[in-house]
Amino acid sequence: MPHFTVVPVEDSATSNYDSLEGINWVDYRDTGQGGHPGHLDTEDSPFLSSADADRKTDFYDRNLALFEEELDIRPKVSSLLSRLVNYTNITQGAREHEEAENTEMSLRKVPKSPNMGTLMGVYLPCLQNIFGVILFLRLTWIVGTAGIIQSFLIVLMCCSCTMLTAMSMSAIATNGVVPAGGAYFMISRSLGAEFGGAVGICFYLGTTFAAAMYILGAIEIFLKYLVPQAAIFHASDHHGGDSAILNNMRVYGTICLSLMAVVVFVGVKYVNKLASLFLACVIISIVSIYAGAIKSVFQPPDFSICMLGNRTLVRDQFDVCSKTVLEGNVTVPSQLWRNFCSSGNMSSPQCDDYFNQNNVTEIQGIPGLASGIIRDNMWGDYLEKGQILEKAGLPSVDVHGAVESVGLYVSADIATSFTLLVGIFFPSATGIMAGSNRSGDLKDAQKSIPIGTILAITTTTLVYFSSVVLFGACIEGAVLRDKFGDAVSKNLVVGTLSWPSPWVIVIGSFFSTVGAGLQSLTGAPRLLQAIAKDNIIPFLRVFGHGKANGEPTWALLLTGLIAELGILIASLDMVAPILSMFFLMCYLFVNLACAVQTLLRTPNWRPRFKYYHWALSFLGMSMCLALMFISSWYYAIVAMCIAGMIYKYIEYQGAEKEWGDGIRGLSLSAARYSLLRLEHGPPHTKNWRPQVLVLLKLDEDLHVKYPRLLTFVSQLKAGKGLTIVGSVIQGQFLDSYGETQASEQAVKNMMEIERVKGFCQVVVASKVREGIAHLIQSCGLGGMKHNTVVMGWPYGWRQSEDPRAWKTFIHTVRCTTAAHLALMVPKNVSFYPSNHERFTDGTIDVWWIVHDGGMLMLLPFLLKQHKVWRKCKMRIFTVAQMDDNSIQMKKDLATFLYQLRIEAEVEVVEMHDSDISAYTYERTLMMEQRSQMLRQMRLSSAERERESNVRRMHTAVKLNEVIVNKSHDARLVLLNMPGPPRNTDGDENYMEFLEVLTEGLERVLLVRGGGREVITIYS
Amino acid sequence: MPHFTVVPVEDSATSNYDSLEGINWVDYRDTGQGGHPGHLDTEDSPFLSSADADRKTDFYDRNLALFEEELDIRPKVSSLLSRLVNYTNITQGAREHEEAENTEMSLRKVPKSPNMGTLMGVYLPCLQNIFGVILFLRLTWIVGTAGIIQSFLIVLMCCSCTMLTAMSMSAIATNGVVPAGGAYFMISRSLGAEFGGAVGICFYLGTTFAAAMYILGAIEIFLKYLVPQAAIFHASDHHGGDSAILNNMRVYGTICLSLMAVVVFVGVKYVNKLASLFLACVIISIVSIYAGAIKSVFQPPDFSICMLGNRTLVRDQFDVCSKTVLEGNVTVPSQLWRNFCSSGNMSSPQCDDYFNQNNVTEIQGIPGLASGIIRDNMWGDYLEKGQILEKAGLPSVDVHGAVESVGLYVSADIATSFTLLVGIFFPSATGIMAGSNRSGDLKDAQKSIPIGTILAITTTTLVYFSSVVLFGACIEGAVLRDKFGDAVSKNLVVGTLSWPSPWVIVIGSFFSTVGAGLQSLTGAPRLLQAIAKDNIIPFLRVFGHGKANGEPTWALLLTGLIAELGILIASLDMVAPILSMFFLMCYLFVNLACAVQTLLRTPNWRPRFKYYHWALSFLGMSMCLALMFISSWYYAIVAMCIAGMIYKYIEYQGAEKEWGDGIRGLSLSAARYSLLRLEHGPPHTKNWRPQVLVLLKLDEDLHVKYPRLLTFVSQLKAGKGLTIVGSVIQGQFLDSYGETQASEQAVKNMMEIERVKGFCQVVVASKVREGIAHLIQSCGLGGMKHNTVVMGWPYGWRQSEDPRAWKTFIHTVRCTTAAHLALMVPKNVSFYPSNHERFTDGTIDVWWIVHDGGMLMLLPFLLKQHKVWRKCKMRIFTVAQMDDNSIQMKKDLATFLYQLRIEAEVEVVEMHDSDISAYTYERTLMMEQRSQMLRQMRLSSAERERESNVRRMHTAVKLNEVIVNKSHDARLVLLNMPGPPRNTDGDENYMEFLEVLTEGLERVLLVRGGGREVITIYS
Repeated sequence: MPHFTVVPVEDSATSNYDSLEGINWVDYRDTGQGGHPGHLDTEDSPFLSSADADRKTDFYDRNLALFEEELDIRPKVSSLLSRLVNYTNITQGAREHEEAENTEMSLRKVPKSPNMGTLMGVYLPCLQNIFGVILFLRLTWIVGTAGIIQSFLIVLMCCSCTMLTAMSMSAIATNGVVPAGGAYFMISRSLGAEFGGAVGICFYLGTTFAAAMYILGAIEIFLKYLVPQAAIFHASDHHGGDSAILNNMRVYGTICLSLMAVVVFVGVKYVNKLASLFLACVIISIVSIYAGAIKSVFQPPDFSICMLGNRTLVRDQFDVCSKTVLEGNVTVPSQLWRNFCSSGNMSSPQCDDYFNQNNVTEIQGIPGLASGIIRDNMWGDYLEKGQILEKAGLPSVDVHGAVESVGLYVSADIATSFTLLVGIFFPSATGIMAGSNRSGDLKDAQKSIPIGTILAITTTTLVYFSSVVLFGACIEGAVLRDKFGDAVSKNLVVGTLSWPSPWVIVIGSFFSTVGAGLQSLTGAPRLLQAIAKDNIIPFLRVFGHGKANGEPTWALLLTGLIAELGILIASLDMVAPILSMFFLMCYLFVNLACAVQTLLRTPNWRPRFKYYHWALSFLGMSMCLALMFISSWYYAIVAMCIAGMIYKYIEYQGAEKEWGDGIRGLSLSAARYSLLRLEHGPPHTKNWRPQVLVLLKLDEDLHVKYPRLLTFVSQLKAGKGLTIVGSVIQGQFLDSYGETQASEQAVKNMMEIERVKGFCQVVVASKVREGIAHLIQSCGLGGMKHNTVVMGWPYGWRQSEDPRAWKTFIHTVRCTTAAHLALMVPKNVSFYPSNHERFTDGTIDVWWIVHDGGMLMLLPFLLKQHKVWRKCKMRIFTVAQMDDNSIQMKKDLATFLYQLRIEAEVEVVEMHDSDISAYTYERTLMMEQRSQMLRQMRLSSAERERESNVRRMHTAVKLNEVIVNKSHDARLVLLNMPGPPRNTDGDENYMEFLEVLTEGLERVLLVRGGGREVITIYS
Repeated sequence: MPHFTVVPVEDSATSNYDSLEGINWVDYRDTGQGGHPGHLDTEDSPFLSSADADRKTDFYDRNLALFEEELDIRPKVSSLLSRLVNYTNITQGAREHEEAENTEMSLRKVPKSPNMGTLMGVYLPCLQNIFGVILFLRLTWIVGTAGIIQSFLIVLMCCSCTMLTAMSMSAIATNGVVPAGGAYFMISRSLGAEFGGAVGICFYLGTTFAAAMYILGAIEIFLKYLVPQAAIFHASDHHGGDSAILNNMRVYGTICLSLMAVVVFVGVKYVNKLASLFLACVIISIVSIYAGAIKSVFQPPDFSICMLGNRTLVRDQFDVCSKTVLEGNVTVPSQLWRNFCSSGNMSSPQCDDYFNQNNVTEIQGIPGLASGIIRDNMWGDYLEKGQILEKAGLPSVDVHGAVESVGLYVSADIATSFTLLVGIFFPSATGIMAGSNRSGDLKDAQKSIPIGTILAITTTTLVYFSSVVLFGACIEGAVLRDKFGDAVSKNLVVGTLSWPSPWVIVIGSFFSTVGAGLQSLTGAPRLLQAIAKDNIIPFLRVFGHGKANGEPTWALLLTGLIAELGILIASLDMVAPILSMFFLMCYLFVNLACAVQTLLRTPNWRPRFKYYHWALSFLGMSMCLALMFISSWYYAIVAMCIAGMIYKYIEYQGAEKEWGDGIRGLSLSAARYSLLRLEHGPPHTKNWRPQVLVLLKLDEDLHVKYPRLLTFVSQLKAGKGLTIVGSVIQGQFLDSYGETQASEQAVKNMMEIERVKGFCQVVVASKVREGIAHLIQSCGLGGMKHNTVVMGWPYGWRQSEDPRAWKTFIHTVRCTTAAHLALMVPKNVSFYPSNHERFTDGTIDVWWIVHDGGMLMLLPFLLKQHKVWRKCKMRIFTVAQMDDNSIQMKKDLATFLYQLRIEAEVEVVEMHDSDISAYTYERTLMMEQRSQMLRQMRLSSAERERESNVRRMHTAVKLNEVIVNKSHDARLVLLNMPGPPRNTDGDENYMEFLEVLTEGLERVLLVRGGGREVITIYS
């Protein structure tokens, strides 16, 4: 039996584990660069308050004693959860967002508590934002021009594009606590600042041009249908009509914009209060269309149009639709007659040819649902600019009429095509972000946003589809194509169909358009302000400031100016494609964000909304792109250029935002993919390039000892290929984390200074030699492995008492050989040129003694790519023995270099077998003396070894002689590095041989090949 | 004085270094995968013969004794160079290429020695290949239709595109020994098999369609100008004209193709002998054009054309160009009159309206250089199909003529546009590869190819430019636009200008066209054969075989069939754009190859031709692309799809060719760029994903001990993110290179089996513990570092005498903590499911005791992505203490998980402070007994420690109790792993605690966070 007794545990007892210094919870991120400000912590650990008073009581909890270590630094679940009690829908982070939200595009003031449901919070705002001026002002015309089938296609394309986008958006919006603020916040928080900024600006510009479009629409309704008398400019002749209209638009548009800007500036809250009124206007208008369509079945409204031949006549310049009228019993010329004929005389008329030869007929403008007019409207009729609206079925004698009478017919004001109509219709499908913009107000944003948005899109799409059919089925084609209702006495075309009165729609659409304009003008500056406050685009900073009441004055001013640009364009049909572009860009990015995140499978991509798929997002993205190019390829390119420039600008500014970016995942995937591609074996000789592992020595203060080593490497690489800078710290890894981080930082700083692009790897090892062996073995990853090692010369080896200096050196040489790596040892590295020096002349001399793969030939070529060495000439020396034909050798060498495409002077130095000089013996003696002294006169060295030493010393002395003779003023001498002896007893001798070999030379680079060819004569 | 004597060295003395076993020269590449066949060695070290008899004498060379090590394995320079004596322009590799060249598209038989100069070898062949049928048959028409200025533009675009391509090609061709065989060899050897194959097939298809085009051209000359009577089909009416012509083309084309194929099959050498004859035809024809143009200054040739009003009349249906002729003294209707009028009666004519109202005039067809006609031809006149050729200056009364008389006018046979003309002209600029195709025959290929090709392009470009001007300056516009010379009595239009006779050009162009067709038909099968022999496209293998005489029968057959397709199209104007596409694709890739290699700065990219620049190549590439899309965007897409499919097919087939690829450099650059992008600090919590370092144990035979560890990791990753598999071999690195390679291979094989995509890293260390520490420190590169370590449980620790097993385990746990890495330890890993199993039910239970970053919540989510675990439900348990409100806790936990978007059942287990059970004491006792026994009853253990042990054991026992109770049939239990004690004395106890904690559970995963949040509720 063991003689231990078990003592009951008391709660107050402290264990010996208490003294543990735990691992700091956050130090990981803060080391080196001073840490980020508060925001990071809030987002990273939103449910963790760093100081926790009640931890002490947990700490001695008997039941969890095993986890004491953890409790010291990590919270127990129960205490974590207890802190979640205070956790509501609006968390710390969200609260910040909510503050932003106050300055965001919100239609109403944010209520005290987020309690809006799907209907009020998402569905209705979306509905209001999607329905717009186009439905009332242009849809009839689109149906008439493109025909029912193609209009269907237009609506389908635009709406399916927004539907797919809504699905992508729903996925993004339900992936975690929803950041308020719409597309900008969603994208910037999920794809990063660069994409976010680009999208934000696109969305801002889109909204701004939308404001311009709404104002133009309102003015159009005002001048065409409400108060035509208010027009300032009048057409001087039938050609000037266009410019007069445009000028009226410009003048009134500018006035209207100024008024609205003032309203927004002084009273946002009134604007927001009116929102439901505007929505009511829209709904009433739409209902009146349906009502009118139904009524047309049994009692079509009475809007007749007057045709001359098959041409449609403008109806406001006459009353009776016939050539003559009976006044009393006398047939007199009608007003119509007088319009066409220069003399009113019935007997000798001087009339327009076409008028003479064709009859006047009156047909029903709105034949109604039951009339079967739908067959005629199935296919469209794209018109050229100025082309007269004709009705296909009517008889007509085709003669040229007089030029003066053109103004009497209804004609097309612009040339139309399918693509143009797509661009004009698309703004009717935008506005789907309205729900996600108000996520802060929602009770359950993650449920309401997808449902509300998708329902709203479904509703509006159905309305559009049914409208297309109803318009086509109720209204005469000539009236449909009549954009401004000239044929129906300048009534709004859609108004003629509506019930009870055209005025319902005219007034309803006017107010809803004005309202939409006000809202755009309210929202855009707030979005700009939000972007500016994020400070990712420095030059926008000024727009972040607001008035005392939070009104973004400067942003409003800029928005006004940009909107004014749109108003100066003056044509609704020209402005619509512009804003389509910007919205499409924005939707494109939403889809891209969703697709990328799905494909990257980031673990944190777990949307609650399940009905997304990368293929759908991709389809949506493609549709956005297609729509952009379909509606206008040059606008598309301009919009993409703008987005691209913003992206690059933000990237260039280096906005490092704490919200992370999805693109990092992309880089990771790309890196992983490329590395896996590289895995298959070493590259072909053709593709060989030095991938360098630089072994750096650090001194006691963790400073780099020989930074010139890095300079040399940067000159060698000229910025391309892999560079790993490795260093070894002597010590125990468990205690040296901080030191490692500090040295890594020091090395990185030095790399920055010396402009070496690469990676840094500091390891802790108990012996430097082992650390180096490990670096040589395990640096790099996959195909990105080093194939060349660069290390410094152990300068103090002769003076040092400690043999470790040169032992480590020789061990490293052996390791590189064992690992089949090339080795470069620059000697006298401090004499090497800095990156600022320029050698204007001189030579790089290569002493090619043995061939080990061609490194010696390649290195000068690479160095010469750098401006320091560019002007140096390359010379290649080789040594001929007695029995060599040195003339032939020189010729061969020149041929070889020609084949290698390397320009170099060639020289063969004859080194005949000579007797060993007394100097050689002397040097050998000195060397051996030194070695023996070191070894305490160990007498084991045999004669044989001495012989060998003498022979080697002889080579060193002789070679050094010729090298110094030929290359004493070379800028750099490259030399084969002899291998170290296998017998480690000879290590000091090896060092001595190298010293003798390089004596008297200023800069020497000892090179050892890695056992494979690195240069080839083949292409 | 030291007492050493120096002995003179004898040559026969062997040093102690002799016994060295050198590093094997080539083993590096051959390890593991059995090495490549011969080709590699030849290309890699062309100047090294492996066995060298005279090495022995070198070896004891006293003068190079210092390099003895090297000489053993690396050749001395003098002996290397002596082998270069036998080295000629044609090296080993090139000789192989030369063999290929014999089966290549060569115009003449390869002469015995390569001794052709630039003129004969490159310039003239290029010239002949570039000039083609288009110059004679279509250039006049192009000038007439597009006008001089736009024709200039067309020529400029096409020729500058080929010029830029020639420069890129020159760079590629002069980068080392030139591989014979044109674009295919150049691209495949420099960009790799995939690109090479795609380009090769494009070039092949281009050449084949060129054959079709030449045949069609020859037939056109034959039927239109030489023997019009030979036509088989005749137009039944003026509408049927087109199809009759096409059918004639088809019939004669097929006959001609068959004949030519037979000629090629039986007598290639005769074809090649005739090459100079064909070239002579071309040159004579061109000279006759210039001669004719000069002659036209003082004596324009007499080709009058007859106009009715401003319309050009077909000249072959009448002789006299007037409405009436004087026969005797009587004015009778001319033939022309009779053509237009149904009754020949002069007095009551029933004539065509237009004929009645317009006059007949006769104008000069070739007014000549001095006439100033150039002003009229400056701008073109694009015609619709069937539009009648008109001369702008002539008076005309515009009335509709009778439909029957349309055939009497010269009308356009196809609709023309600028882009169409570009596509038709481009084949005239192709053929620039002719020089580089015959590199084997050249004395100095590296000089001749650039100079010859560029000169030839310059020459042809000048000829085209001057022809455009001369045609425009000499010939009447209506004649120029008359494609088939109908207005000039069915003469070849360019023939009308030539001197001394039109027949010079008709016959000259006929022969040159036939010759070009024969050459294309000779070249294309040989190219196909060369591609097939490379065996990169397996299904083409059959085309690699030839007859006994080397004739590629099958390839010829295929070529014939494809050419027949072109002939069935039957229209020169339709076939030309097709071959333009394929040649443009090919040129695009040549430019791409040059640009990519320049930008990548591969050290082996050192072209002798210096006048290249990546920007020029890029411009050339863009021009190719632009020309493709300009001439026909749908053909362009088809051609690109074909090239893309071939690329993907070759990639899929995994052709690993020994010639290396430039794309590898691209992957390297991409990997480097992405990694450098990732460098900035650890990723945001949002982007966190497990990057796993798996520590594998190998047994004595270097087999993986627990492959299930890899299975588990593959299930965890579901194929995404970084995985590094690390292993440590105990030993000395210098001796273990082979072992390392073998184990790396073993691990890689196992990774393949378990479908883990990732990297493998085996290191040698004197202690396993140190090796692991180094792996943890230094695996990965830049941003691709592991953040999680997976290691196995040391199963035999209790039984083992050797404490190293669990000491290494605990040391590794400590290391991961020190390095801020997460740790996962799957216990009973052999019970873990394989990748083929599917759990159809069951749960993954998480026991969340302390919060260390959320790994516990994230891991089941990740596992559930894999099909093995997909159907498992997730349950989260947490432990409530006595003072916790467990109902509130459960609610909070559910909310938290909702916010995390993780679906899991939530349970709070109450674990009240209970007394320590007797069992606990017993287990503690047993544990301590064991520890003490191990420590030889060391008596230092204090009471305090025992207390702590009991408390910890209490936790373990109690927790184990509840866990087993709740999760005994869970598929997997995830559990917080307690930290090891700092005091290493307690290490065995720690192991025991872990054993007790997990007792009775089948599969347990112990998880320790890495000190940072890995999951966030924010998006």
